[in-house]
Amino acid sequence: MGKMFDVILLILILLSVLFVMIESVKGLPENVYDFLYIGEWVITIFFTLEYIARILITKKPSTYIFSFYGIIDFLSTIPLYLSFILVGSNVLITVRALRLLRVFRILKISRYVGESNKLKKALIDSRAKIFVFLFAVLIVALIAGTLMYLIEGEQSGFNSIPVSIYWCIVTLTTVGFGDIAPVTPLGQFLATIIMILGYGIIAVPTGIVSAEYAKNTDYVHVNTQACRNCGALKHRDDAKYCHKCGEELHPEITKNS
Amino acid sequence: MGKMFDVILLILILLSVLFVMIESVKGLPENVYDFLYIGEWVITIFFTLEYIARILITKKPSTYIFSFYGIIDFLSTIPLYLSFILVGSNVLITVRALRLLRVFRILKISRYVGESNKLKKALIDSRAKIFVFLFAVLIVALIAGTLMYLIEGEQSGFNSIPVSIYWCIVTLTTVGFGDIAPVTPLGQFLATIIMILGYGIIAVPTGIVSAEYAKNTDYVHVNTQACRNCGALKHRDDAKYCHKCGEELHPEITKNS
Amino acid sequence: MGKMFDVILLILILLSVLFVMIESVKGLPENVYDFLYIGEWVITIFFTLEYIARILITKKPSTYIFSFYGIIDFLSTIPLYLSFILVGSNVLITVRALRLLRVFRILKISRYVGESNKLKKALIDSRAKIFVFLFAVLIVALIAGTLMYLIEGEQSGFNSIPVSIYWCIVTLTTVGFGDIAPVTPLGQFLATIIMILGYGIIAVPTGIVSAEYAKNTDYVHVNTQACRNCGALKHRDDAKYCHKCGEELHPEITKNS
Amino acid sequence: MGKMFDVILLILILLSVLFVMIESVKGLPENVYDFLYIGEWVITIFFTLEYIARILITKKPSTYIFSFYGIIDFLSTIPLYLSFILVGSNVLITVRALRLLRVFRILKISRYVGESNKLKKALIDSRAKIFVFLFAVLIVALIAGTLMYLIEGEQSGFNSIPVSIYWCIVTLTTVGFGDIAPVTPLGQFLATIIMILGYGIIAVPTGIVSAEYAKNTDYVHVNTQACRNCGALKHRDDAKYCHKCGEELHPEITKNS
Repeated sequence: MGKMFDVILLILILLSVLFVMIESVKGLPENVYDFLYIGEWVITIFFTLEYIARILITKKPSTYIFSFYGIIDFLSTIPLYLSFILVGSNVLITVRALRLLRVFRILKISRYVGESNKLKKALIDSRAKIFVFLFAVLIVALIAGTLMYLIEGEQSGFNSIPVSIYWCIVTLTTVGFGDIAPVTPLGQFLATIIMILGYGIIAVPTGIVSAEYAKNTDYVHVNTQACRNCGALKHRDDAKYCHKCGEELHPEITKNS
Repeated sequence: MGKMFDVILLILILLSVLFVMIESVKGLPENVYDFLYIGEWVITIFFTLEYIARILITKKPSTYIFSFYGIIDFLSTIPLYLSFILVGSNVLITVRALRLLRVFRILKISRYVGESNKLKKALIDSRAKIFVFLFAVLIVALIAGTLMYLIEGEQSGFNSIPVSIYWCIVTLTTVGFGDIAPVTPLGQFLATIIMILGYGIIAVPTGIVSAEYAKNTDYVHVNTQACRNCGALKHRDDAKYCHKCGEELHPEITKNS
Repeated sequence: MGKMFDVILLILILLSVLFVMIESVKGLPENVYDFLYIGEWVITIFFTLEYIARILITKKPSTYIFSFYGIIDFLSTIPLYLSFILVGSNVLITVRALRLLRVFRILKISRYVGESNKLKKALIDSRAKIFVFLFAVLIVALIAGTLMYLIEGEQSGFNSIPVSIYWCIVTLTTVGFGDIAPVTPLGQFLATIIMILGYGIIAVPTGIVSAEYAKNTDYVHVNTQACRNCGALKHRDDAKYCHKCGEELHPEITKNS
Repeated sequence: MGKMFDVILLILILLSVLFVMIESVKGLPENVYDFLYIGEWVITIFFTLEYIARILITKKPSTYIFSFYGIIDFLSTIPLYLSFILVGSNVLITVRALRLLRVFRILKISRYVGESNKLKKALIDSRAKIFVFLFAVLIVALIAGTLMYLIEGEQSGFNSIPVSIYWCIVTLTTVGFGDIAPVTPLGQFLATIIMILGYGIIAVPTGIVSAEYAKNTDYVHVNTQACRNCGALKHRDDAKYCHKCGEELHPEITKNS
């Protein structure tokens, strides 16, 4: 029963997001939009019932309501009602934005996905390094952006320093849209240096995450068990006998003591 | 004899794919296309004979016919015959698609390349992580794409949410075609954040594959010694006693025997 | 008191850089520029006082004045005064450049950020390798750029060898602006090879930095045990005797004491 | 004397390459080209003398002449003479190509740079893997390219299969020029898959090179010295006593024996 509810919920979440996506495509036959509108109401009512049910089930409703999933569930439900109330008025853009909020329903799906704790741990452990790294990238982008604005100016799209910084980040991250590109020899020379810098910089976060990740890998695969006879360490996780002296290992004892 | 057959087959596969490629180039002299047409028939007949021979050689033909290589071999043979039958009718696009199917013949060549088992193992072992990672990328692309569609709208090419998601993936993967690019300051700001996210995300699969790969590397360095008592494998290189049953290990015997 | 001064300074630095950025944006209401001009004077006066204070506080002022931060502090103060003196004359471009120099004030902020010594060490240790690597990239760019100039010529934007080299670095670093792109089949073929080369090359700095970084990490995993006889450090984790003087090591004692 | 010759040679090589680069820039004052022409003759004569000197010095001239550097030195010398001979005729394009050959002189400079043996070793060791990897990339590009050609066709620049393959490699390597970009929804969907594939694939060479590099790092930092008493290996490079039995180590003996 609970299992079936979960499967239906999963399908409805995916359908709902698909509906938002299709709705934004112009030029489809009129009855498609009608179908989407009806489907939207069905899904919203289902989500409303789910939201009410979850509040009723929880012992302390306020904990759920202000939790991450509580807010997501609320935001998944409210847009259609709000847009229904506001549709008479002419705040059309707000209504459009509200309706698009429905896309955040996809976050409901994260309930189904087991969190990658190890990856999360690697990211949290390298938080300080990533912050320093980002700070360095922003300083480089700020200074290089200002220089490019000075050298290139408006004739090649470097209209202001913020735009120049945007271009710098596009270049440093090796995305390179090409909507803005240097034209003067000096600008192209500076761009070359920025690109090689970006190429070098790309190695840094990879190195950091790899190293943190590899470190965690070690800890996960190696227990801290010591042989009672000879004190040898770093046994295989499933080892029953010490690899050094042949003494029987007692994981349960080591863990309790 | 068998060796020579293999070499001829290899050359014909490569030639065949080359022919498909050249055929698609417009503006060559007419006799080139005539030559390609004749060459195509020669190759198809050869592949047909090969296919029949392989069926006759195999003890249980159905195993071969429905195997990966059996299907590839069949698909390598059939297009020309089918296009010959259908050419009178006006299903020209289907014929064109059929003829292009011949490009899958390149997969026949994988028979010659020893599979990189280690790489395959690294990819399979990190399957779950890669799936979680892909899922995270798609959620980011969906939400960021919807926001970009809302902010930028149609004036800069963000015509619908699917197109916006396409743009987001182009940006997150640092490809950056530039066919669609943000124009408004807010859109450029959001693009900057997406790019830096993408830059950080690029580190994650690299870290995962590197770590898995390095781990497998370790297994290669571990000896192939088996315990004479219980048959356990994968002992530490410096192990003197079996980690499973405590039996003394005799590396020198295992190596000599 | 000193704490509060630091916080105010931090805010003023960020505000100041923000002002330079906003000032470069055209089309804002006139009173915004007026506000920025006044704000700029307030900040400059504050920075001037800070600069004078720092000179007075330091025992040997010349050490401060010619230090990295001394020069940064001076460059943060001078532009507005200079532009005030020069504004009557018609050296407008110089004045503009001078005013933009203020962006270097962001470097004042690095006083607040603890330096990532480990990252710095990894970069310094791999200096020689990075130099060889950069040299290789430049040789590839020079030769490939010349060939592309020869093959493509001016019809597709490869106007001169320097421009071709610029394009090559744009391609090798996988930035790919697309402002210049090969048109001829031969040019596209060569571009393909350059791109795959660039794809392979991207692995090299990542590998170098990762390895250096991981090596430093290793030192963290090595025990902190010191020999009681000679004080030598960095023994192998399973060492029983000092690698320097042969004295027996007593891990259990070191850990307990 | 020999030292000074080396320094002059180094400067002339760099100057020479710089001259080729400047020569290709159009629109400079006429006397610049005249200066470059004279400079070119001076450098060519110097290189000619160097080439003759090297032949005279070597005991077996043929070894030098057909060595890597011998061919580079010859190619550095000949272009100007050949272009002088051919200049009367109308083989202008050949002459232009010949003159640009001078850019290969940069390879003379590799005499000065100590070869990165370790990097070379890492690349050679992972040769087989890199080959398999490249082969996989080409198969993906071939099949995806054919599909894109079928889906997109000529309206968006996918004129032929070779051009489509070129686009696929531009996309897989995350370069993304944007000169060709998919327009149809189906094409954009396939492009998305290709990009995510490319994003995943980028991890593979990095992982391979990193792992090989890290493996070599170990070998370089660990000597092959064995303890004469207990046979223990993998001592620290500066170890004087065996870490296992305390016996004094004799690196000088081990190396001589």
